[in-house]
Amino acid sequence: MPQFMDVHHGMKGISADQLMQAHQADLAIEDEEGVHFEKAWADPESGTVYCLSEAPSAEAIQRVHERAGHRPDEIHPVPLTA
Amino acid sequence: MPQFMDVHHGMKGISADQLMQAHQADLAIEDEEGVHFEKAWADPESGTVYCLSEAPSAEAIQRVHERAGHRPDEIHPVPLTA
Repeated sequence: MPQFMDVHHGMKGISADQLMQAHQADLAIEDEEGVHFEKAWADPESGTVYCLSEAPSAEAIQRVHERAGHRPDEIHPVPLTA
Repeated sequence: MPQFMDVHHGMKGISADQLMQAHQADLAIEDEEGVHFEKAWADPESGTVYCLSEAPSAEAIQRVHERAGHRPDEIHPVPLTA
């Protein structure tokens, strides 16, 4: 299944608990869209969050993230890895 | 050691081989700065590359990437993960 990196801006000051809760909210509903969120990384200082997922499409990621309450600003397919 | 996500823009059309060569160029010299590049993901369509690393500082990452010929556009510490 294709991998995607999505990016959230404007998350300045996000805490470890908030990141974990947001990630859990995704995991709780991701199956309904055939998505799996593998990992999330956050920079509280700049307010940037990166989420790595496997998903059938960018739209499926968008729907899960929106329903979980945190619409992403960018979603990039990342077909190449090293 | 702190983790960082750095981002390269303007890499439209990057190939799997080019990504692998760039990553290998980093790996070849990273020890000199105490950096370890763990993984890289590329979106050839938008020309975006994400690199995840462990490093003593953003400056150390900057030096390795510059010497390897691909200066990053952003370097974010990512102290939070989920």
